[in-house]
Amino acid sequence: MEHFNVLRTSLNSKARAGEIKTSHGVVPTPCFMPVGSQATVKTLTPDDLEQLGVRMILSNTYHLYLRPGIDIIHNFGGLHKFMGWSRPILTDSGGFQIFSLAPLRELNDKGVLFRSHIDGSQHLFTPELAIRYQEKLGSDIIMVLDECPSHDAPKERIEQAMARTHAWAMRCRNAFHSNNQFLYGIVQGGLFPDLREQSVRFLTSLDFSGYAIGGLSLGETKVQMYEIISFTTEMLPDDKPRYLMGVGSPEDIVESVIRGVDIFDCVLPTRIARHGSLFSWQGRVNIRNAKFKKSAEPVIPGCTCYTCRNFTAAYLHHLFNAGELLAFRLATVHNLFFMESLMGKIRETIIAGDFTEFARDFLASYNPTDEETRINQKQKWLAKYNNRD
Amino acid sequence: MEHFNVLRTSLNSKARAGEIKTSHGVVPTPCFMPVGSQATVKTLTPDDLEQLGVRMILSNTYHLYLRPGIDIIHNFGGLHKFMGWSRPILTDSGGFQIFSLAPLRELNDKGVLFRSHIDGSQHLFTPELAIRYQEKLGSDIIMVLDECPSHDAPKERIEQAMARTHAWAMRCRNAFHSNNQFLYGIVQGGLFPDLREQSVRFLTSLDFSGYAIGGLSLGETKVQMYEIISFTTEMLPDDKPRYLMGVGSPEDIVESVIRGVDIFDCVLPTRIARHGSLFSWQGRVNIRNAKFKKSAEPVIPGCTCYTCRNFTAAYLHHLFNAGELLAFRLATVHNLFFMESLMGKIRETIIAGDFTEFARDFLASYNPTDEETRINQKQKWLAKYNNRD
Repeated sequence: MEHFNVLRTSLNSKARAGEIKTSHGVVPTPCFMPVGSQATVKTLTPDDLEQLGVRMILSNTYHLYLRPGIDIIHNFGGLHKFMGWSRPILTDSGGFQIFSLAPLRELNDKGVLFRSHIDGSQHLFTPELAIRYQEKLGSDIIMVLDECPSHDAPKERIEQAMARTHAWAMRCRNAFHSNNQFLYGIVQGGLFPDLREQSVRFLTSLDFSGYAIGGLSLGETKVQMYEIISFTTEMLPDDKPRYLMGVGSPEDIVESVIRGVDIFDCVLPTRIARHGSLFSWQGRVNIRNAKFKKSAEPVIPGCTCYTCRNFTAAYLHHLFNAGELLAFRLATVHNLFFMESLMGKIRETIIAGDFTEFARDFLASYNPTDEETRINQKQKWLAKYNNRD
Repeated sequence: MEHFNVLRTSLNSKARAGEIKTSHGVVPTPCFMPVGSQATVKTLTPDDLEQLGVRMILSNTYHLYLRPGIDIIHNFGGLHKFMGWSRPILTDSGGFQIFSLAPLRELNDKGVLFRSHIDGSQHLFTPELAIRYQEKLGSDIIMVLDECPSHDAPKERIEQAMARTHAWAMRCRNAFHSNNQFLYGIVQGGLFPDLREQSVRFLTSLDFSGYAIGGLSLGETKVQMYEIISFTTEMLPDDKPRYLMGVGSPEDIVESVIRGVDIFDCVLPTRIARHGSLFSWQGRVNIRNAKFKKSAEPVIPGCTCYTCRNFTAAYLHHLFNAGELLAFRLATVHNLFFMESLMGKIRETIIAGDFTEFARDFLASYNPTDEETRINQKQKWLAKYNNRD
């Protein structure tokens, strides 16, 4: 099966509109995957996700391995059947989670020994097991096992981790035998262009179905991140999808599409929703703010999502204020609807040929800083101003 | 507007099928109201409730007064508009909540002074205010302010509270002027038949649109509760609806319908759902039980609710085990679907004339004890057995 097809490339940027084909359906790109690490996108049913227009979700081998266990899902006929989601699923190998969540890791030639963040029990992941687990899960796109060092580790450490990631990538490639799944490699190399270049060369020599850019959005500046993305996508083959792992925010997605990225995932839209932070085309709004207490408007006037069509800002403010569970669900619906709208606009303008204008206008009007952060910054600034002599 | 209409009375019990008419629609009785104290039935949207067949919900003046405030809701055109629910709403006056939730109460001739359980601020509720607040909320059925003493208080205390409830009921009656709402009185008197009789006599002399039985299901035995219900409904007028407040469980509802009760509310179905306890026609099942870990069946085989039609017991078990928010929603959907099915069966068999048989069969097959309680009891019994010499 042909996996990826570029339909149109932007004239004055690297943005492209395409289609990813899987045995569970076609995914138009650029696309954003909501995160369902534990076989559920928090608060929503699969029906809700379909109604929101979500085409592909991300799930996670590490989480599913620990709970409920790979074999339980396998015995149900795979992750799609287990969670009741019939559209494509991409699973991460669990590499990132082992390095970010699990305490007491031990790396050796075989793989990585780690303790569960849930009960402290000890487990071994090898490249071969990461592939076998993902084959058992039956996800449509699966990822190689990679080592993710801290973004500010010294270069030797980043280089060592990259070398291990390459060795593991080769072992994953050899262990992979499924014919209805697609395996993606993960480019590492931190913020070092020479390492990123080595990583792209090595991985493309293994001919994966797609290439992910790992190790970004971990604390480096946005300028650093955008530079590495530009540099890396420049070297990646045009006929394979490019997946920027763990990104992102609306502004990072637009900046990365400009630089040629096709696939995104991030907990941000769903996580900040549960903290009351809602997307608008001008930036984020925090519904907990007292100014919404009496607002008879929808949270985002003009928004046509289920939440904004049916409820006022005052009602949503009340639900958050009262700690009601429905708050999390309604806010999640709004933010994922916004992400789908954003991705729709991006695809539409790439195909129509005016993506660059859309991106420029969007980035000019969208204030990526959270309303509360802006207020805090203003207060800090005022405090500083008041304290000077 | 005529408020209540009895369609059919059971031949060999006091059960009756009827209709309550309100300006937001007709409610077939016997009916069960899910509880939405804070203007939301936890985890569900109004659409979900409609799809479940819910015809009337309960909300609470005490909670809404504290958060978001009565005037905020009033300025939105009332509670229906504020929460997006177009079917009937019954609000409790807040009496019970003041006496069960609020610390530092002070009763005087005027009303009851209490501190908010949220922020400790001091507030006064009077019978007149309780009516004015409920008129502002625009709920279809509103309740008088009552005093609810502990069920095991001495008789003099119960009698004193009843006398105050009567005085307040009269003041509520006089303060009530709305012509699209219906005001119900609340019979008190604890477990004392002579007090209950006095209470019925006094309240019926004020000619309310319906009569609630308060002060039950607070720790007394089921036998005591059923006796008081039988005794009280016997004296209440046949042409007015009878509302048993805070009840109940499936078995208590069936037992109370036999004794002539028309309306119920209880947090039980939604609260135990969030703890993983799901109703079946044989009793409660706890989905957290390890035996569901690999079950490819729905939680309750044969159940046609959204949850059981779409998800396996193993998936629901996983969601609870992983602490996922979707668990609470799916379990709530199941339990409210069960309650609607139970009420549907009750109405259907009263009208068909075989309710007594249905009630007998239901009570014979339904084990009201939670599965986990049964297991604990068995273990206690075994421990006792093993310890004897």
